[in-house]
Amino acid sequence: MKIIEKVQSAIAAGRSFYSFEYFPPKTEPGLNNLYARIERMGQWHPLFVTITWGAGGSSTDLSFDIAKNIQNLTGMETMMHLTCSRLSRREIGDVLQATRQRGIQNIMALRGDAAGGGAWQPHPEGFRFATDLVRFIRESHGDYFGIAVAAYPERHCKEATYAQELGFLKEKIDAGADLVITQLVYDIDIFLRFVDECRQIGITCPIIPGLLPIHNYRSFTKIARFAASIPAKIVERVEANKDDDEAIKAYGVSLLIEQIACLQAAKVPGVHLYTLNLEAVVTQALEQLRLPVQSDEKPLPWERPASVRRSHEDVRPIFWANRPKSYLARTMGWDEFPNGRWGDSRSPAFGDQDAFALEQALPSHFDPRRAWGEAPTTFQDIMDVFVSFCAGETPAIPWYDSPLARESGPLREPLMLLNSRGFLTINSQPRVNGAPSGDPAVGWGGPHGRVYQKAYLEFFLPAPVLPALLAALEAQPSFSYHAVNTHGDSISNCPHVNAVTWGVFPGREIIQPTVVDPVSFMVWKDEAFALWKRLWGAIYDEDSPSRALIQRIYDTFYLVNVVDNDYVDGDLWATFTALSASLGAHRCEP
Amino acid sequence: MKIIEKVQSAIAAGRSFYSFEYFPPKTEPGLNNLYARIERMGQWHPLFVTITWGAGGSSTDLSFDIAKNIQNLTGMETMMHLTCSRLSRREIGDVLQATRQRGIQNIMALRGDAAGGGAWQPHPEGFRFATDLVRFIRESHGDYFGIAVAAYPERHCKEATYAQELGFLKEKIDAGADLVITQLVYDIDIFLRFVDECRQIGITCPIIPGLLPIHNYRSFTKIARFAASIPAKIVERVEANKDDDEAIKAYGVSLLIEQIACLQAAKVPGVHLYTLNLEAVVTQALEQLRLPVQSDEKPLPWERPASVRRSHEDVRPIFWANRPKSYLARTMGWDEFPNGRWGDSRSPAFGDQDAFALEQALPSHFDPRRAWGEAPTTFQDIMDVFVSFCAGETPAIPWYDSPLARESGPLREPLMLLNSRGFLTINSQPRVNGAPSGDPAVGWGGPHGRVYQKAYLEFFLPAPVLPALLAALEAQPSFSYHAVNTHGDSISNCPHVNAVTWGVFPGREIIQPTVVDPVSFMVWKDEAFALWKRLWGAIYDEDSPSRALIQRIYDTFYLVNVVDNDYVDGDLWATFTALSASLGAHRCEP
Repeated sequence: MKIIEKVQSAIAAGRSFYSFEYFPPKTEPGLNNLYARIERMGQWHPLFVTITWGAGGSSTDLSFDIAKNIQNLTGMETMMHLTCSRLSRREIGDVLQATRQRGIQNIMALRGDAAGGGAWQPHPEGFRFATDLVRFIRESHGDYFGIAVAAYPERHCKEATYAQELGFLKEKIDAGADLVITQLVYDIDIFLRFVDECRQIGITCPIIPGLLPIHNYRSFTKIARFAASIPAKIVERVEANKDDDEAIKAYGVSLLIEQIACLQAAKVPGVHLYTLNLEAVVTQALEQLRLPVQSDEKPLPWERPASVRRSHEDVRPIFWANRPKSYLARTMGWDEFPNGRWGDSRSPAFGDQDAFALEQALPSHFDPRRAWGEAPTTFQDIMDVFVSFCAGETPAIPWYDSPLARESGPLREPLMLLNSRGFLTINSQPRVNGAPSGDPAVGWGGPHGRVYQKAYLEFFLPAPVLPALLAALEAQPSFSYHAVNTHGDSISNCPHVNAVTWGVFPGREIIQPTVVDPVSFMVWKDEAFALWKRLWGAIYDEDSPSRALIQRIYDTFYLVNVVDNDYVDGDLWATFTALSASLGAHRCEP
Repeated sequence: MKIIEKVQSAIAAGRSFYSFEYFPPKTEPGLNNLYARIERMGQWHPLFVTITWGAGGSSTDLSFDIAKNIQNLTGMETMMHLTCSRLSRREIGDVLQATRQRGIQNIMALRGDAAGGGAWQPHPEGFRFATDLVRFIRESHGDYFGIAVAAYPERHCKEATYAQELGFLKEKIDAGADLVITQLVYDIDIFLRFVDECRQIGITCPIIPGLLPIHNYRSFTKIARFAASIPAKIVERVEANKDDDEAIKAYGVSLLIEQIACLQAAKVPGVHLYTLNLEAVVTQALEQLRLPVQSDEKPLPWERPASVRRSHEDVRPIFWANRPKSYLARTMGWDEFPNGRWGDSRSPAFGDQDAFALEQALPSHFDPRRAWGEAPTTFQDIMDVFVSFCAGETPAIPWYDSPLARESGPLREPLMLLNSRGFLTINSQPRVNGAPSGDPAVGWGGPHGRVYQKAYLEFFLPAPVLPALLAALEAQPSFSYHAVNTHGDSISNCPHVNAVTWGVFPGREIIQPTVVDPVSFMVWKDEAFALWKRLWGAIYDEDSPSRALIQRIYDTFYLVNVVDNDYVDGDLWATFTALSASLGAHRCEP
């Protein structure tokens, strides 16, 4: 949605907010770190994030890619900077088109800085002022975009007076911008005076102060000191600690807390934080401030990304429940979610696995050999890893973007048992029969609703026990199942889409956000089997017995999903506990 | 669906079947009687019905209209006859297009009879043989249509030998027909021999014998005797009773029973009955035969008509629940039900009230003055009619196509009470929390499912008590409501679509076949208010006090719907019983 709308509703509700600014890093590892960092910082619920435009030589595509990925793979509303530098009108038009195409709805329209220290030069077929860019966006895309512009509470450049700068800002608003974010502010009084003067010349939209926390001495001296008036006592404190990183950081935290408190006292509702892609000072300050954050409500059992294209999405296959980014990446190219459903797009869809999505699977600093074994050689070694994951001791297996879901808590014991018996589980949920939608473990959706789940279990299994398993499943009239191996040999008793999570809410249609279906399962199985080799097998030498073991599992195991349709009285876990004891899957050495 | 598929699955299941043939009547009252009769006979679950083409001068449009209405307003799969007589290829193409457009999927392709006793003449730009028509249908519409053709177990015309006739039939099958229905058969042996000979020349599709029951002496002598060999003993029995209508009818019944039994003994799975638009002989025979009929299962709480265009329809507003034909007529022009939903078509939709749909509201032989009062002058008179309807004493009120729904049984007492207190109820359902889908009262859908309902109540109410009612409703957090008068003054606390009937089935998505929604309610209110005047007020003289009373109700009352979203613990009826006692609506003389 448009950020101005989020800002206005936060103001209307009297809710403080903050936003984070990031810039495109220069290296590939830097990029992966940045994604992880943006996501971690996302747990602080910034009202929005901004991605700066690649001024000064870095690729413009990278800014767009980062903004696109954050907007489409996370729930954070993302504002992409866009400058007039080095772009023709036509190129800007193309960027806007691509931006819209990828569901980004917010642009920060800037003139841009001069490259390499010289004077700023407009592109010969481009725009001269940010005002022109704002006007162009409105002319070519109407009301689609939220448009923020920059303001300079202190005089910006030598060519213009302070009064002229104010006039330029008014022009940008009149051209169609709806939100103002200021350059760095250290002296809160200067900011407040500036806001007063904006109001006097008829600028009525929200004006958010930009704060650059003091992350370290270097950034302070290189950036801050040249960009804003800094109260003497701040400079003194920093200079006094210039050789003590920790002390500067600690001061950065306390200064940020003081600034935010001071702005809140002056009824300034929110702040924009220039993170410089750094985490510590910002999160420590927020932690200590204990601002009442956005409520942590779950409108659906899974998180819908911010992309405007997915705003009506309300059904997903369960298979990617533990790898949501992979699902989002695969479906990012879909033109629409008709009626909020993934369903109609199923045949043409499911783009190829996206490297970004796949590599996200493992936590940073994760050592796969330590977690999954230096040299596993038996099925028992593999089972031990799965059991250890269920027990919470191993932090990750290839099929989980994140640790075991909180709902699975009560399932921990039965899952450990199943894995110790050769049922290598990778996804599960318990049955739920009309729990209140506010239930802390299984609830989702608005108030006063009731939510339901069919019990679900998905696991890898050695092929020799499959016939006995299927016979046992057929004896359970309430079970739907689907088994498939990597070669596509497929056995199922349910050709339809089966809703496995749904909710009933006052004054609403029934919502069924999670389904099990045969079509997307066949797509998922390719990914699920590939993860054995790509993430696990690949950590061992090519000719090692461990690599061969993983390859044999890949070649011979079946991936099986089972739904117990009896969500009222069924006991999938008791059935599987009994089955796993009798089938002896753990004795099948691959 | 295609009738050949229904026939084949009946054969595969070893289920006997029969179908009924009707012809377009010559008069308007005859037409209304025919609709009522086809519907009544529909309770015998014919596998399909056929409508003959208007040969010999009657309007071709009427055949199409009847087939269209039966296909679209009832659940009976309808086959429309189409002949080559008097139609150019282009005109036939137009008919096929219109037929398809209206969701009819089955055609009986015939050459047609000669008009007025002369020799048959092809249209100069038309077809000469039924084979040409079959080929044209296949060429222009591929596999869309099921195509039946006629067969003549006895020699048909002087120009061709019996062997040639057999060859013509083979040609019609080879051209694309998939089902054979024979001309009148009285001598079962002749039919069986004919089938044998068809099989010998490679005709493999089902061949259904056509039986003309002996309805009366006149039809027997005028039609049957000239069209088929009739065993002597049949002729004797009819001639012996030629002056005794009842005796002939009784013989017609016993003969039909004998013929069907004889065909069943010969493993002929089904028969096609030429009803001549007459009811008694056919239904009496079927009653005595006690054939195992199609199961009376309800795939949805409401009956989906046979139209192929509606085969995915699975959501409807609750408002027309008691006037389904009106809803069907209004939505017949909709191009599609995307994803089985009425939802997306809501704005452009809801065609004007169709006379056929409206006039269906009252049972035949219904005397409205006797039922609704010779000269009501007070609100009490009106309330008495509603109470009497709820008690099952008055057979109809204008808002019900059919008597009180069976689910309303347990609601009878509270509804009588509410009506006696001035809440004129026209629609209601009790809450249901996960009843088995096989429940005889509230069940629907396939086996092993569970069905749910939110309690619903809809009623007319005098305007003076509305504010007190709304205050009371607002005090109930689980209630959604919408009140509107004939002028469109509208008050509601629920702007969304609210599912009020849904079901959960093994291996399936959640189905929510009935909803309450604000948009269609505003359309329904026009119809609901209009019915006061069109069906009730109109029975009184223009200047009568009764007419004026109805007009005042029309002008001043509110139509109110209320949903209790608490389908687990709510008690809508207790709330309304208490409310109705305190509000004193019955004292508001309109």
